[in-house]
Order: sequence, then structure tokens, then C-alpha cells
Amino acid sequence: MDQERFAKQLRFCLELDKEKNILRQTHLSSNGRREDDAEHAWHMALMACVLQEYSNEKIDIAKTMLMCLLHDVVEIDAGDTYAYDPEGRKTQRAREEAAADRIFGLLPEDQRDEMRALFEEFDAYETPESCFAHAMDNFQPMMLNDSNGGADWVQHGVQRAQVEQRNARTGDGSAQIRAYMQEVLDRNVARGSLKD
Amino acid sequence: MDQERFAKQLRFCLELDKEKNILRQTHLSSNGRREDDAEHAWHMALMACVLQEYSNEKIDIAKTMLMCLLHDVVEIDAGDTYAYDPEGRKTQRAREEAAADRIFGLLPEDQRDEMRALFEEFDAYETPESCFAHAMDNFQPMMLNDSNGGADWVQHGVQRAQVEQRNARTGDGSAQIRAYMQEVLDRNVARGSLKD
Repeated sequence: MDQERFAKQLRFCLELDKEKNILRQTHLSSNGRREDDAEHAWHMALMACVLQEYSNEKIDIAKTMLMCLLHDVVEIDAGDTYAYDPEGRKTQRAREEAAADRIFGLLPEDQRDEMRALFEEFDAYETPESCFAHAMDNFQPMMLNDSNGGADWVQHGVQRAQVEQRNARTGDGSAQIRAYMQEVLDRNVARGSLKD
Repeated sequence: MDQERFAKQLRFCLELDKEKNILRQTHLSSNGRREDDAEHAWHMALMACVLQEYSNEKIDIAKTMLMCLLHDVVEIDAGDTYAYDPEGRKTQRAREEAAADRIFGLLPEDQRDEMRALFEEFDAYETPESCFAHAMDNFQPMMLNDSNGGADWVQHGVQRAQVEQRNARTGDGSAQIRAYMQEVLDRNVARGSLKD
């Protein structure tokens, strides 16, 4: 065993723990507590597996799951940027690039490059795996929010047009899940949880 | 889209959310809060990926990651059984089998059978993937506990022999990680966090 290599891997593994402290705006179903990034990533990865048949294109599920598990690691430094926070989103890219340098940089070079490439692939939103992972990233909080009567949208006064804009490319990953989202939006507008 | 099939898949995906409410005895590093099952599973799956080169045998990493992500789903009904709770461990198997029937039973039959088989494979502790996933299941909380000065062991008055017994088969997944664990145990006995 290369002790220096193992020490770097352990350092990264322990660093991951901090992602459990990054809170999102989404609340758990029937709980009231806010979800954290690690829970969200776990949920997304399993949903990607269960729902993979709805991907527009055939996907490498191992790659997609790993992308889901890793995609928010940068928020350990950069924090969570709420989907409907236009000011935060202006600086998001720069904050997350610096975080990726530091956090993936804890790993041995070969793994640093591999993980970083996967993170960049997710961010670039081009490959079938990235498009499907993004669909899960958008659908998972919508599913929880819908189960809570749309309470997160109510709390932030979110408008239907904002959600439509956020999901402008969800159909690139899954046309079928994007179509189901439309039902969710209709239901929440009808019950007054989402402003029309 | 088969609406009945999709409805079953969604029902399972939403049910998964409850795993975030199942607390473990392990505390997060430098936080003080107890870890939940979803966070633990996420952490294990990523550690399996980063540390896969230390598996005794070559493993299918997609299968191993999915096993890690799924292995505690049964605790939604059965609750978490602490590694050093002999009474709880007597009934663990029966409680978890009933939970697996109900929870995986929410899925369409093909996916129910696939996920159930993966859960049973983990539990049987025979294949290289199962052995490595078990090594991660044991190593992840030890890493966090060690980073906290062994506080979880102190709180429960755990003895070195109990940890050794718990890890009797960890070397079946990874001899190298089992050897590193010995260093962790030595360090914690030396600082008085673990009774010799």
C-alpha cells in the first residue's frame, strides 16, 4: 500500500462528511426539517437508478449515479445556491470552480482528474448522463415539495414561470419526467401553492 | 408511459425520503449531530468508489455503490440496530425481512426482485461486492468516530474486543483497510477512548 496515496484518499473521504452540514431550501416530506446536500445526492442517485428507463437516451448508470453523488461536493466551500436566487447564481460558477480545485485536489492526481472531469461533465449539461442527472436534480426537490403541499414555493413566493425556466432543459434528460412535472405544476397552481 | 408502473416507482422514490429520519449512533465529524442513514449510505457509496483499489477481489463498482445506497432502506421500518446492542441484534433479521417485503414491494415486480436480490446479496456477505460494501459499512463510522476522538465508543463504553468481533470479517472485503483499522484501534486504546 502506498501510504501517501492512502492518506490523501482518507483526507478526501473525511472531507466529504462536511457536505452533510450544507442545508438546502427543500424540506423533507412530512417532517419539517430542511434537507442537506448529502441526503439530496443519495436520493437523486437512487432515483436515477429506479427511473433510468425514462432517460431519453441510453445512459451508463454507474457514471450517472456517481455524478449524482458527487455533484454538490463543491457546496462544502461554495454553499448552496437556491434555484430562485438570481444574485447568488451570478457568482455561483466562480465559487464552485474554486471549491472544486481545493476539494478534488485533496485526492491523488489520477482520482482528482477523474472526479473533476465527472463534475465538469455534469456542469456542462451535454452528455446523456449529465442531462438525466440534471433531471433528477430538479425532479427530486419538486417531488418532496409537492408532497408537502408546495410549501417551499409558498415560503419563497415562487412563480410558475420561474419553475418553468428552471426546468427549461429538464426535458433534455427525460421528456417523460418533464411531462409529469407539468401535472405537478398544474396541481400546485390550482391549489394556490405556486403563483401563476 | 405505463402510468401504473410510473406511479409505483414514484411511490417508492417518495418512501425513500423516510430513511433521512433514521438516526444512527455515529456522530458527524466536528459537528456533534448524529448521522442519519441516508447520509451514511451516501458516504459509504462514495468511499467505495474512492477506495475500490483496496478490495481484495475485483468488484463491479456500480453494483457495489447501489448496494451501499440501498442497504439500510429496511431501517425505515426496522429502525437502526446499534452494532454493540446484542438484544437488538437478536431480532434484527426478522424485522428487516418484513421491512424488505413491504418497501421493495412498492416497486413494479421486476424492480422489486432486482432491488431485493441486491439487498439479500449484501446481507449474505458472500460476493466480493457484498464483502467490500460491508467493509465500507464498518469503516465509514470508524473513520468519523476516530476523527472525533473516539467519542462514540466512550459514550457507549465499548471495548476493543467488541470492535474486533464486529470487524471479524472486514478483512474479507479489504485486508488493507482491515490492517489500517488496527492502527485506529491502537490509537484509540492508547488515548483511552476504547477499553482494552
